[in-house]
Amino acid sequence: MDARVKAFGRRIRYFRKRLGLSQDGLADKASLHRTYVGAIERGERNVSLLNILRLADALSVTVKDLFDEEID
Amino acid sequence: MDARVKAFGRRIRYFRKRLGLSQDGLADKASLHRTYVGAIERGERNVSLLNILRLADALSVTVKDLFDEEID
Repeated sequence: MDARVKAFGRRIRYFRKRLGLSQDGLADKASLHRTYVGAIERGERNVSLLNILRLADALSVTVKDLFDEEID
Repeated sequence: MDARVKAFGRRIRYFRKRLGLSQDGLADKASLHRTYVGAIERGERNVSLLNILRLADALSVTVKDLFDEEID
């Protein structure tokens, strides 16, 4: 998998922890399955744009923030 | 479809035209089908992260650039 998919997963984890959310909590907020959120954070999923938007909304960030190399 | 999917499509078109590429040319560079690139630009496709990365590479921009609301 492209290194940027792994970096994306790390950013999801970073923002989730910043909100004090568990993977379960984020999965609930984003209407995604808990195991799917875990796999995304490990960079193991080719996430679709609509799910990227759900995650951004659940984390109260922009999609741009999720791809910001400065934030990690 | 989420308005941000349409905005993403407009940005793909913006960067493609800036490079003077046709949809065919971009499709070739990104190893995607021409009709798929057209549908993405119209905001009709739920593009996957790996295809977003291919498009960013073919357009010589970062994924962050593709979601930058300032650029349009």
